Amino acid sequence: MALKLAVIAGDGVGPEVVGSALKVLEAAAGPHNLNYTTTDLDYGGARYLKTGEVISDDEVAALRDYDAIFLGAVGHSDVKPGVLEKGLLLKLRFELDQYINLRPVKLYEGVPTPLAGKGPKDIDFVCVRENTEDLYCGNGGIARKGTAQEISTQEMITTRFGVERCLRYAYNLARERKAAGYPGQLTLVHKTNVLTYAGDTWFRAFEEIGKADFPEIERVYHHVDACCMYMVASPERYDTIVVPNMFGDIITDLGAAIAGGMSIAASGNLNPDGVAPSMFEPVHGSAPDIAGQNKANPLATILSLSVLLIETGRIKNDPAATKVGQQLEQAIRKVCPQFEGQRLDRPKWSTDEITQMVIDAL
Amino acid sequence: MALKLAVIAGDGVGPEVVGSALKVLEAAAGPHNLNYTTTDLDYGGARYLKTGEVISDDEVAALRDYDAIFLGAVGHSDVKPGVLEKGLLLKLRFELDQYINLRPVKLYEGVPTPLAGKGPKDIDFVCVRENTEDLYCGNGGIARKGTAQEISTQEMITTRFGVERCLRYAYNLARERKAAGYPGQLTLVHKTNVLTYAGDTWFRAFEEIGKADFPEIERVYHHVDACCMYMVASPERYDTIVVPNMFGDIITDLGAAIAGGMSIAASGNLNPDGVAPSMFEPVHGSAPDIAGQNKANPLATILSLSVLLIETGRIKNDPAATKVGQQLEQAIRKVCPQFEGQRLDRPKWSTDEITQMVIDAL
Ligand SMILES: CC(C)[C@H](C(=O)O)[C@@H](O)C(=O)O
Ligand SMILES: CC(C)[C@H](C(=O)O)[C@@H](O)C(=O)O
Repeated sequence: MALKLAVIAGDGVGPEVVGSALKVLEAAAGPHNLNYTTTDLDYGGARYLKTGEVISDDEVAALRDYDAIFLGAVGHSDVKPGVLEKGLLLKLRFELDQYINLRPVKLYEGVPTPLAGKGPKDIDFVCVRENTEDLYCGNGGIARKGTAQEISTQEMITTRFGVERCLRYAYNLARERKAAGYPGQLTLVHKTNVLTYAGDTWFRAFEEIGKADFPEIERVYHHVDACCMYMVASPERYDTIVVPNMFGDIITDLGAAIAGGMSIAASGNLNPDGVAPSMFEPVHGSAPDIAGQNKANPLATILSLSVLLIETGRIKNDPAATKVGQQLEQAIRKVCPQFEGQRLDRPKWSTDEITQMVIDAL
Repeated sequence: MALKLAVIAGDGVGPEVVGSALKVLEAAAGPHNLNYTTTDLDYGGARYLKTGEVISDDEVAALRDYDAIFLGAVGHSDVKPGVLEKGLLLKLRFELDQYINLRPVKLYEGVPTPLAGKGPKDIDFVCVRENTEDLYCGNGGIARKGTAQEISTQEMITTRFGVERCLRYAYNLARERKAAGYPGQLTLVHKTNVLTYAGDTWFRAFEEIGKADFPEIERVYHHVDACCMYMVASPERYDTIVVPNMFGDIITDLGAAIAGGMSIAASGNLNPDGVAPSMFEPVHGSAPDIAGQNKANPLATILSLSVLLIETGRIKNDPAATKVGQQLEQAIRKVCPQFEGQRLDRPKWSTDEITQMVIDAL
């Protein structure tokens, strides 16, 4: 049974970094008898400019045949901001019900953090961001547009259903991490003192589910503003974080920044029930300024592929995939110290050289 | 003509740090012939627990007789979170139309920042947060509460009126800063690629007003998630930031963290037109655990009083107030290097000793 991967390399540096990660996969798969197929799909800015369509409903439906989606980066200077984000990324998250956005915040040995006096022991947590509700539903409108009386609204939607499945995922993850030696603590990040309705729905569910089904997991609550302060002043206080969509967007990027930045930040958009494929992508953008120059650092993409393999292995019950995913992470971990003293976003090595370094470390 | 100050010392360490700041004011006022009166008002947790009311409409109306409000901290362990925040802080912001939340992010020489390799030259900007709209309006509700079908909504309200007056304030501030040697750059922080309605109202106004009336000010736009990364990776790129209420709440606390933390973070809630009093408060909370022990660091409160005097001096056309405010800031600047190597939130000196250090530095 081969793992079927849909590959959306995308724009800018996307094809280069995806190509790099797939080379690493090729090298790692053999020894573990991991069988997989890849299918290249050309969604992204270039295709949109040609056809005027980002992705059709039929094409979204066709993605359901795959076990996972591997995405490089989308974004094109000639495409209006928002078109590809909403038309492709958010569309797939919503249509394929990828209700968990998983963002590990882990500083690898050798990777420079902007925080003084903090090291890999201090920066090692994971964010579970709800991925299908909140301000991301897109509800809203503008009245009297262009006049002095213009008023616009955006609605934040929160449901018990959406909150509960996200919380259960997060509690289970905290439990698993506890078994692996982490403190076994789940922090809810919200702004309950201002968002009294959405905050109430989240907080009650957080307490109820925790008390009833995860009594051994310590529950902590932080306001989102305080959380941002703690992330830079004392990131060691976090183990597992659960957070609604919009605040999650913000704190996970802050998390990426303290763990070494965009060049090593991976993310997964999970449908943990496996009824539709999950999607994995580096956090960085398409970086058109350095595209095609063999300059982009592929580490974030290789790490995203590692997360893809680990998570898809669990969801699809394919231990070989999980194994190879773990091996990829180990290889990255071994390569990172070689970057000591360098900026990860301006590596002295080429994309190809870094690819080879990871392969050598396998 | 004496400056009439309403003083809400509040809960926990509030009375101590406010007492400290008023001692500094007493010492500084004389030489500049600044006349002022203070009136103590007992709003806060303790009074709420006694009377069951936070502040009445008549009491809010009575505050209009003052030139400015000086607030210590509110928050009491026996009061449900949200009651005092919504019942006092947010109520006054809205009722007194304090539509600007002004948060300087300035690292003083000698103050430790959590960012490696960054110093006072790198961290020196100001955030202008809209303070009367957005998710803070409180619109929303919960349906089917307590059931599996529970759904809650929170509405983000954005008006051209609210956005425009905030943008004009921010552009003017950037212009003033430019005259003082700063780059003359205004960065709008939003999430236009997801919040397409609210983002559109902000972005169009930002462009129109900038092009028409502030052509010499460079306009920059950042998504809020990217802004958080930049704040820790390259804070030197910011001069003046303008941001809606909720995102502003988040990024200003992050700003406080990089500039040394809560113990030195000041804020002003301004009614720049002077039709109602502005309110100034340290960013930190009431810290009940160290209350009454002469342990709290009063610097954030003294700095907030400095901002009070500078801004009220402008609004009320009282140059003596502005002068004394500037002197207070200078004194804090002189005292900061003595904290080198210490944690500001655990000073080795008592509240009284730090007060005296600031007075000596005047
Ligand atoms: C591109 C954008 C729509 C997206 C988001 O806001 O979720 C991105 O910032 C992310 O975090 O994946
Ligand atoms: C106390 C709270 C309501 C308030 C806010 O959210 O605005 C605080 O965080 C602030 O920034 O002044």
